[in-house]
Amino acid sequence: MIREITGYSNPLVKRVKALRDKKARRLEGLFLAEGLRILTEALEAGRAPHMLWFAPDSASHPLVKSLIAATEQAGGEVLTTSPDILSKLSGKDNPGAVLGVYEENWTPLDQLDRTKADIWIVAERLRDPGNLGTILRTGDAVGAGGLIMIDDCTDPFSVEAVRASMGALFTQSVSRANWHDFTTWLRTAPAQLVGTSLNTEHDYQAPAYQPPVFLLVGNESQGLPEAYEKDCDLLVKMPMMGKADSLNAAVATSVMAYEVLNQLRRR
Amino acid sequence: MIREITGYSNPLVKRVKALRDKKARRLEGLFLAEGLRILTEALEAGRAPHMLWFAPDSASHPLVKSLIAATEQAGGEVLTTSPDILSKLSGKDNPGAVLGVYEENWTPLDQLDRTKADIWIVAERLRDPGNLGTILRTGDAVGAGGLIMIDDCTDPFSVEAVRASMGALFTQSVSRANWHDFTTWLRTAPAQLVGTSLNTEHDYQAPAYQPPVFLLVGNESQGLPEAYEKDCDLLVKMPMMGKADSLNAAVATSVMAYEVLNQLRRR
Repeated sequence: MIREITGYSNPLVKRVKALRDKKARRLEGLFLAEGLRILTEALEAGRAPHMLWFAPDSASHPLVKSLIAATEQAGGEVLTTSPDILSKLSGKDNPGAVLGVYEENWTPLDQLDRTKADIWIVAERLRDPGNLGTILRTGDAVGAGGLIMIDDCTDPFSVEAVRASMGALFTQSVSRANWHDFTTWLRTAPAQLVGTSLNTEHDYQAPAYQPPVFLLVGNESQGLPEAYEKDCDLLVKMPMMGKADSLNAAVATSVMAYEVLNQLRRR
Repeated sequence: MIREITGYSNPLVKRVKALRDKKARRLEGLFLAEGLRILTEALEAGRAPHMLWFAPDSASHPLVKSLIAATEQAGGEVLTTSPDILSKLSGKDNPGAVLGVYEENWTPLDQLDRTKADIWIVAERLRDPGNLGTILRTGDAVGAGGLIMIDDCTDPFSVEAVRASMGALFTQSVSRANWHDFTTWLRTAPAQLVGTSLNTEHDYQAPAYQPPVFLLVGNESQGLPEAYEKDCDLLVKMPMMGKADSLNAAVATSVMAYEVLNQLRRR
């Protein structure tokens, strides 16, 4: 059954709009995703929205129809509303045709099966939501198992991170842990922890990486804490031919991840 | 001589603040850069600001002193002002210690010396300033000659692009052209034009790249126009192991650029 929401003051509008704030997301365990492309990727990954919003003139789009059917089948709510209210919900002048509210899905570390993928990405105090989302997107592209976030990272369920992930948030598992719990878990089974760092002369193409490889990327401006670098099996760096001494964090992670993937597909 | 600016209504404050808009930048031929790190990189690349702003409590910092001296020597203006006015100029709550106003430096195509570098980056209708700045930063890192922007790209001199470039805007040349003028210039001398595309099965690691290599990246959501792809010497793609069919534009460019650099440093 499709409900029509006509008023800005409807409590549902307020509740969904509030999900643009991290506090409300944590409290409700829900987050927002926008746009047909991302919602369709979510559906293909087996995730139906808890709540689906669309503007009336999108109702006839075949992808919107599939989303409506899947939401109803999964017991979610389907809501139609004006483009103006959709704008208000998404915070964008030009919102996509659809907006979905999803349940946050954190995967506890001890439920990760490290044997299911050769590459895993570990982000430490990453602060930029665009970087985090882009890293998830690259993770999907290289066939990574998921993302593990250490210490105080930016929220992967923010609108900006979800958007930058281009749907990869629905295909990559997302976990969080402090360094001690992460390394304790990591060392219960074979794993190669590889940090990208400026504090090494070890070229990133020199090692023969041993899966499962856990690629560790540090904070955008400070890099990794020295103590964390010491816990790595390997520290490597990309060649830097210019004046700058570092790459964007998502770029560095991606260049590393493709190196590992390239080695593995040559074997 | 250091001038002190105390009022929000000072015409200079208005003029500099206006540089956050593209129209004012084009009219004045000036742009803003913020933060000690970026301004110092600019100085190391031989670029002194046309105008240097700093808050009084930064005056004793040795890097700020060098910037003041260099600005005065180059005939620029040095201005001290309150942190509040600095915030207003930069549009950030927490502005860096310094803010510089620089002259835009577009390099005409016919002044590019393609033999001075093995890698050049060509961006077509790139819309995201963060992506453009990140590509400049990677360009610096791989020793690229510069960035050539085709058709209607986002402004490389916007505050967001300058910030994402982390100073690379001062070390990389920036040119713009339409496709016809670019390809006409390109074919006046040896060059390999390589497009990243979804419309090929050609793996990006298969070719032996022939410098100077011009790496062409297309619009974030639409990729390259078919006609432009036909003008390329090679179309290549990165392996995609997941659900998504594409990478972030800056990531794709960077993974490609490192592949070319890696090939060249093995020769």
